[in-house]
Parts: sequence; C-alpha cells; structure tokens
Amino acid sequence: MRMVKGCPSTSMDDYQLNTTTLIRHAVRNFPDQELLYRSNHQLFRYTYKDAYKRMMRIANFLENKLEVQPGDKIGVLDWNSERHFELYFAIPGIGATLLQMNLRISPDDLAYVTNHSEAKYIFVDESLLSVAEAIAPNLQTVKGFIIMSDKPMSEIKTTLAPIYPFEEMIKDEPAEYDWPIIEETTAYSACYTSGTTGRPKGVYYSHRNMYLHTMAGAAYFGVDSHDCLLVIVPMFHGQSWGLVHVAVMMGAKIIFPGRFMAENTAPLVDLMIAENVTITGGSPAIFLSMLQYIRTLERKPDLSRARFLSGASEPPVSLMRGFKELTGAEIIHAYGATETTPLVAINYQINPTLRNKLTVEETWDLRRKQGLPITGVDFTLFDPDTGQEVPRDGKSVGEICIRGPWITGAYHLTPEDESGFRNGYWRSGDAGTIDQNGYVKIVDRIKDVIKSGGEWISSIDMENALMGHPEVLEAVVVGIPHAKWQERPLALVRMKDCKVIPREEFDHLLYEHFTKWQLPDQILFVEEIPKTSVGKFNKKEIVKQYKNLYLGMESEGVVSSEL
Amino acid sequence: MRMVKGCPSTSMDDYQLNTTTLIRHAVRNFPDQELLYRSNHQLFRYTYKDAYKRMMRIANFLENKLEVQPGDKIGVLDWNSERHFELYFAIPGIGATLLQMNLRISPDDLAYVTNHSEAKYIFVDESLLSVAEAIAPNLQTVKGFIIMSDKPMSEIKTTLAPIYPFEEMIKDEPAEYDWPIIEETTAYSACYTSGTTGRPKGVYYSHRNMYLHTMAGAAYFGVDSHDCLLVIVPMFHGQSWGLVHVAVMMGAKIIFPGRFMAENTAPLVDLMIAENVTITGGSPAIFLSMLQYIRTLERKPDLSRARFLSGASEPPVSLMRGFKELTGAEIIHAYGATETTPLVAINYQINPTLRNKLTVEETWDLRRKQGLPITGVDFTLFDPDTGQEVPRDGKSVGEICIRGPWITGAYHLTPEDESGFRNGYWRSGDAGTIDQNGYVKIVDRIKDVIKSGGEWISSIDMENALMGHPEVLEAVVVGIPHAKWQERPLALVRMKDCKVIPREEFDHLLYEHFTKWQLPDQILFVEEIPKTSVGKFNKKEIVKQYKNLYLGMESEGVVSSEL
Repeated sequence: MRMVKGCPSTSMDDYQLNTTTLIRHAVRNFPDQELLYRSNHQLFRYTYKDAYKRMMRIANFLENKLEVQPGDKIGVLDWNSERHFELYFAIPGIGATLLQMNLRISPDDLAYVTNHSEAKYIFVDESLLSVAEAIAPNLQTVKGFIIMSDKPMSEIKTTLAPIYPFEEMIKDEPAEYDWPIIEETTAYSACYTSGTTGRPKGVYYSHRNMYLHTMAGAAYFGVDSHDCLLVIVPMFHGQSWGLVHVAVMMGAKIIFPGRFMAENTAPLVDLMIAENVTITGGSPAIFLSMLQYIRTLERKPDLSRARFLSGASEPPVSLMRGFKELTGAEIIHAYGATETTPLVAINYQINPTLRNKLTVEETWDLRRKQGLPITGVDFTLFDPDTGQEVPRDGKSVGEICIRGPWITGAYHLTPEDESGFRNGYWRSGDAGTIDQNGYVKIVDRIKDVIKSGGEWISSIDMENALMGHPEVLEAVVVGIPHAKWQERPLALVRMKDCKVIPREEFDHLLYEHFTKWQLPDQILFVEEIPKTSVGKFNKKEIVKQYKNLYLGMESEGVVSSEL
Repeated sequence: MRMVKGCPSTSMDDYQLNTTTLIRHAVRNFPDQELLYRSNHQLFRYTYKDAYKRMMRIANFLENKLEVQPGDKIGVLDWNSERHFELYFAIPGIGATLLQMNLRISPDDLAYVTNHSEAKYIFVDESLLSVAEAIAPNLQTVKGFIIMSDKPMSEIKTTLAPIYPFEEMIKDEPAEYDWPIIEETTAYSACYTSGTTGRPKGVYYSHRNMYLHTMAGAAYFGVDSHDCLLVIVPMFHGQSWGLVHVAVMMGAKIIFPGRFMAENTAPLVDLMIAENVTITGGSPAIFLSMLQYIRTLERKPDLSRARFLSGASEPPVSLMRGFKELTGAEIIHAYGATETTPLVAINYQINPTLRNKLTVEETWDLRRKQGLPITGVDFTLFDPDTGQEVPRDGKSVGEICIRGPWITGAYHLTPEDESGFRNGYWRSGDAGTIDQNGYVKIVDRIKDVIKSGGEWISSIDMENALMGHPEVLEAVVVGIPHAKWQERPLALVRMKDCKVIPREEFDHLLYEHFTKWQLPDQILFVEEIPKTSVGKFNKKEIVKQYKNLYLGMESEGVVSSEL
C-alpha cells in the first residue's frame, strides 16, 4: 500500500471524536426525551437531562473521591440498567476506560480479565455481589467496590471490601462537570473475548472507533428521535452498546429493562408493545421465543415501524417471515463480533439491482445471508492455508478478514500473532463467501468446517437444514475423524419430547441443500448437547466424545454407495 | 479546555478516512446501480462500475501524462455532469486537491482563486471555454487545460493553450489503478467563498472532514440504495457535493442533469417524476418554481418518498405545505455554508417532546427554523461586540459560531483574523437564537441587522412578512442611518406588473410579527433591486444609494408617534 500526504486542509482536523460529544448533543437538543428503566419489577422514567446530571455527579465522584486518572481502567458488573448507561459516559468521559465485565464467563477467567486490565475499581450491582465475591480473593489491582443498589447500605451483606455505596456517594457531588477533550485514540472501553480456547483476549475500543461506529449505525438503521430502543442484549456485549450509542446520537428514547433477559419473553414483549419500541437487538433464539408468545396473543401488535437486529447466527426464514406477517416488524440480520465493535455487515434492503430479479422465496432466502458490508469496512477472503486472496464469486470459500476504523488491530498487551491477524486484517475465524453484489455469507467457523475427501461441508448449513424439521429442538453437526475421508459429518439432534423419527425424514430435508455424499454418516438422538459457558455448542467437546465413532469404518449409512 | 490522553486502544486508529473508500464500497456492492447524465438533451445511463473504470483511467492520465503529484491543485470548471462526478473521486483519489471553480464569480476573482490555489491544470467543459479564456491571460501557475467535450477536438475552437482532449487522452489509459492511502488530513477539495467584501477566501476540506460529513448526512437523511438523487445545485457548491457523497456511500442512484438548472424547471420536474427521484437539494426559489409547475399538471405526481433539502434561506410555509399537500414530498430546511462543508443543522422531524404540544400551524412555523444541530457539530452564540456567550433561551440574539470536524478552522494561506474565528469557533456572520430544545433560528446577517435606538430589528423577518403579500415579487429591508435612532428600516419592494398598493396593506402584514416602532419608515416601490454576482440582494449597495434618505428627519411615517 502506498501512503501519500498532500496539501494540508483548513478543516478542524484536530477536533477529537469523543463519545462525550454524543451525550452532550442529546442533552442539549433532547433534554426531556424519556429514558426508562426497570427496577424491582417497576418501570421508572427519567430523561436525558436527569441522566446527564447523574453522569456529572459520577464523574466528580470518580475524580474527587476515588482519584481516578485518565488511563485508569474501571470495571462494571451490571445488567441492563440506567446506572450502567450512566457509567457508559461517566467513566470514559473523564479519560478512564470502562472495562465491561462479562458475568457469564468463569470466575477464573473473570479474575484473569480484571487483573490483565489492571482495573482499579469495580462498580457492581447488588444482585451480582456473589460474582464479585467469587473473584475478589484473586484480584491484584482492584482498590475497592462501588455497590449499586436501591437499598440502604446497612441491608447489604457482602464480603467485599472496601465498599462504597454508589447512590450515597454521588448524591452530594456537584451536578456540573467540565468534561475534558480526550485524545481520540484513547480507549473508551474494553471488552475481553470469550474464546473457547485459551485465555480471554482484550479488545480496547478507542473513542474514535466508537464514534465512527455510532455514525455508521445511525446511517444504516435510520434512527431518529422518534425511535425507541429496548436494550435486550446484555450491556457488556457489543450489540448492546452499539445500539445504545446510536440512540443517544440521534436523541431516541431508550428502555433499560434491568435483569430482564431472554428468559422473560412475555413481559418483554408486553413492554415492547406498551412503549412502542421500534428498535432492538437480539439473537434468533430470543426473537423466536418472542414470536411464539406473539402467536398466543389474541390481538397481534402493530410493530410495523420496528427494525429488530438479529445477530449471533443466521435467522431462519420462518422467523423473519413470521414477524413480518404477524406484526409488520423487520428482523434484520446483522454480522459482527467483539473485535468489530460489532457492526460490519447488514442485510437490510435488497440490493436494488437484484430486487426485480428475485422471487419472494429467493428474497427471503437472500435475507438469511450476513448481508452487505457497512461502508468504511473492508472485507476480504483469505485462503486459511495459503493466505492467498480468494475470488469474490459467491462460491469460493475463504476466511472472512476485515479491516476498518472500528476493527481491532491487536489484542491488549498480547504479542502480535499470525493466528489473529493477516496483512492488516483481523481474522474472523469464519469461513465464508462474498458474491459479485457484495453479499457476505458465512458457511461455517473455519475450525468447524468438515473436510471430507478434499471437499468442504458446511456444518452450519446442515444444522439449519436439520432444524427445519418441526420436531427438532436443537441440532449440531461436527466432523469426526475418518480413516479414508479424513473427516465425515456426524449430527446430534435433540427432539421435542425425546421423540425418535425415521432417518428418511431428515434426509428428505437435507437433500434440498446437500448432495448424497455430503450427508451425515450418522444422526444420533441425544437428550442434551454439550454447550460452552456462553451457551454455544461445544463442538470441541462433541468431537472429543465421538472421536472414535467412525474409526475403522470403511464408509457408513447413506453415504456408503456414493463415496 | 483540558485535553487528556488515556490508555491506548487496540483499534485500527491509523485507518485513514479517505473518500476513495466511499466509491470503492459503492462499486463493490452496487456495481450495476445506475448513474444517469444528460448531454445534448439526451439522457444516458451508465453504472458505478462504468464510472469507476473511467475514474481509474483519469487517475492514470493524471499521474502518467500530466505528472500530477499528491499536493497539487487541479481546477474543475463544469456543470452537473458525469465527468465532474468522476473528477470528484479521481483527482482527490491520487492525493491531489480538486479546486471547485465557481463559474458565477467575476473573472477577476476567478483568476485570483486559481492563482491563489496555485492550480496546475484546469479541466473545463466545452460550454465554459469562454469563462476559462477570460481568465487565462492572468493565470500564473496553470500549465494546461483539459477540454471535456463529446465533439472531436478538431471542432473545438479556443484560444486556450496547451489543451488536452479529455476523452481521447483517457481512453487508452488502463482501467486499473492502485489507489494510495491518503493521510486523512490531506485536502480533498478546495472551494473559495464568494464574499461580498474583499477577495474570495480558500476553504480546503480534508478527506477526514468529507468522510465524517458524509456519514453524518447519511445518518440524518436516511439514504439507502433505493434512493435516487437528482443533482440540481451546481456541483461546485457544498450542498451538491454533500449529497453526492452521501449517495455514493449508500449506493444510491444519481442523476446529473448537466447544464439544467433552476431556469429549466419543467423538464427538471418531468425528469424527477420519470426517474422516481427521492432526494434533491436546492433553494426555496428553485422549489417554488417547481411547485408552480406542478400546480399546472393535470395529474399530480406521487413524491411521497421524497425528501428535498432546502438551503440558502428560510423556506416559506406555503412552499413546504404546498409540496406536502400536492405531492407528499417533504421540503426540509437545512443550514450550512461553504465553511461548514455544508451541513450543520437540519429541521427534519419535530423534536418529540414538542410534537404533542404544537398545533398544526405552530408545527409548520417551527419548520421554518434552521433546525437542530447535527451531532458532532457544536453551536454557540457569541455577542458580536463583547464576545461573551449568549444564553440559549430562544430569545437572546448572538452571532452563530460553530466548531466541529467538518468546520473550517482557518482560510488557506490567510493570516488568522479575529473577524473569521472566535475561541476555536468559526463565525458564521449570522445573527440568531438557540432555544432550550436546541432549535437554531437565524434572525439576520450580523451586518444586516438594523440597530434602532439600541434595539435590533431583523431584516429577514421583515422581508418575509412583506413577501407574504401576493403581489410582491421581491422585498428587501435595510437599515439607513438616522440622526436620532442610529438606524431606521427602509424597505424596497418589487411588485408584479409594477403595481402600487396602499401602505396599509403592508402594515397589516407587518403587524402580525412586528410592533409599531419596528416598522419601516418608508416602503419604496422599485423596478429592480440591486444584486450581487451570485444573485443575493446587494444590501451594501442599497444602503449606499439611500444613505441620505433619513438624514435630518426627526422621525417618519408610521413610527413618528411611537418613537
């Protein structure tokens, strides 16, 4: 790459992109816009103006009482609360870095993350005291815990020490604060990846990164001050902070439902209807359970203004169609990862040159893809073995590699490592294709791709095909070592009411997308599928359990005659 | 302002924001999206993919044949053509700076601009040869002229030398080009202000500036690849390049109507209807003439997806309502200037906290204001005399001063000057108010405000009130020196068919917005109102003509009894 420098501009190029600008803008222009939060089963309303005053009190508390300096890391262990929101702006606003603490990873890893980031203090919600207590003995740098609760401190029982009562500490701080200008490459927040192998790795997002990501989100979601965001995904995840910042940038209403996640679908949907929610983010699993609840409602809600972003995995067509037909809401597939802030691709509106060429069925099918890259983000495909660029022809599979202003270029205090980055791109670990109209499609995790006789079989596509059976609750497909073909597919299925059905019923579904030689040698009915701490299929564990299953087999099942 | 630096991020903060990224994205993801252009009264269609190939040929031509280097300035003298569009990306894409040459300023000023920027070459459309010829003898740095025409060169008659035939020169250049990464503070383009006093001053926009402005535009207009932009405002003006870059970022269709401006309303509107235009920009004058034509159409067009940005001056409510009621199109008031790239405020959707409190009439009235600042742009009001900040109370008037990443912080090669900047803000020269919900309202140009007996009278509001009379074609109000009151208002009106009407008819309109002492001492009927080269009222000239009108008058007309 050539790098050139030309005539200097007269622009204010030294104007620093700071997230403080976003909240200041919201408060100046939408001071009375509502922010809702749920606490003790009650819904409370306050405004941007109110929240901003509390942010300033917190900033003063951080500086004056805790002596937090620019560059310090401050942990937050909380659900989707208004306090977590206030900390989104108060901690980074003084030049410190907010460490997002994922309460679902193992205590061992969580302690590691806290020590690795050298966190100075931890803000912890009362309901998560036990999580903090479990790691406290192993913390090396933390000087104290700020307890966030509505109860008086005398009612709080904890082994943590020293502790500071959040509400009592901030209430007498001044509600005025002179926010500094922060050098835009300063880390706004940090989040550690929850990899299934090795220790979590630190992604530190700059203010510049967050600011540009927010602008891109606003451009692609078309958010304005008449929108209402419901924050479903935990606020320590990218999908959540991404949407919250977009909402703030455009002055939208936000609802923080507290500890009120996927398991409580009915009240979540009721809240959505009552407050005219137009934007939210989640995974297909969450939206599926919402859809099931909506089907039970006598009067179907009108959610025709709503755009719901679905990440983590491919949304089934039945889910997208169901929402559209029942409520008018669009389920939009978006793609991203912790390392990408997260938004890098979105399948929103059909590319106009394709629009008139596709049938309704083909259009829905297209919408399952990861979509088009967001402007400003470069996608490329590298052959994982040779490192050569793979053509953008919609067929050739390569590892999806990404670069751009909100993509991580390294891991915090981790030596550069070819396994994570290649030629200036971050390696997603996803195997995929890109077609001539720019559509990105993930076919598998690189490590999960099944390599059979020199060909690749997509475990994800096969899982989706199996999931098409109405009696299947969960399906997972892995590659099991095979003497002749290197690997052969094995499927595990968990059925409703532990039913068992004839193999043909699956094959019928599989033949729609696969040829005979690709079909799994065995499909096993199981009562439980092993999962990781964050709820993903633990394919490593499954392969380990079944590693000898195909050994010594020449060939098996339906594939025998074909191979 | 405190400036702090914290923990370094792991983001790709060195990823440079380049406008090349925008066009590359459009070509990769919307290769077959249409671009239309008009030439010799015919409409031609090509695509992003086609245009991109030509951009690469031009880039090669610039580097290989003209030996253009990063940092060189290259002038463009053209209408709204596909070639102008190609130059938008080809010239800055190699690291050079595109000098926008305003063909409406005086030849003397245009020569000054070209020399001041040290332009190396000028790309000139055949129809504008005479403009180039008029300045050529005075050019000090230009080494040649590239003639853009569909005719063979043998048919081109010009005194310019040396000349290069654009189409012939680029056709054999390779359609592949390895775009460099450009340091983001490099000037992408330059545009000189057309001030009524002194020489034009150079605003040099960085790639970073343009990129961020484009993202903001995309966020606020909600543009996507199903939109169609008609480029009406000349492409050497900010309103035009602002929208074009947003369209490219989101892969929208674009129509370049050539030399096809406001004077040709009917074919422009026909084109708009035929091609389903959803976005355009213009001034109230252009939209007014469109509306008049639409009124004559038997079948009113459905433009309900359209958002038309109106700048330059306050759009009358009758214009906004007329478009909405007749066609469904929104006329949206936006505010900006050459120094602000231009977008800094927009009056799109009504602030949600006001929405339910306003009557229909009040809502339309609100939409006349300049609107809410765009996130990322800081507005403030300074007292022009004392430099003190003026409260944001919707009443206190001050000079609108702006800062942000796409605001100019200086003029090119011009010593810093308190008249242009204050405390890190650019001084707009507009007198205005900001209310508690953020709405910006311009009341006057600072220099046009009429100061009478220590009070300010807004000449703009008075002109609008006079324009409310159906027989008035144009109205201008200036402050004329007055012995007792310092200044008193004088109005000049140009009437339809040179009519003369009784003073009472004006007073009736004026009393709706003004109290008695504010009314003009005289309202004169004139056949012509002096204008500047860019078509604005030449208030300086008017004051000069009438400077002795009120001298020696104790008081006059309707004001006598009140003062």
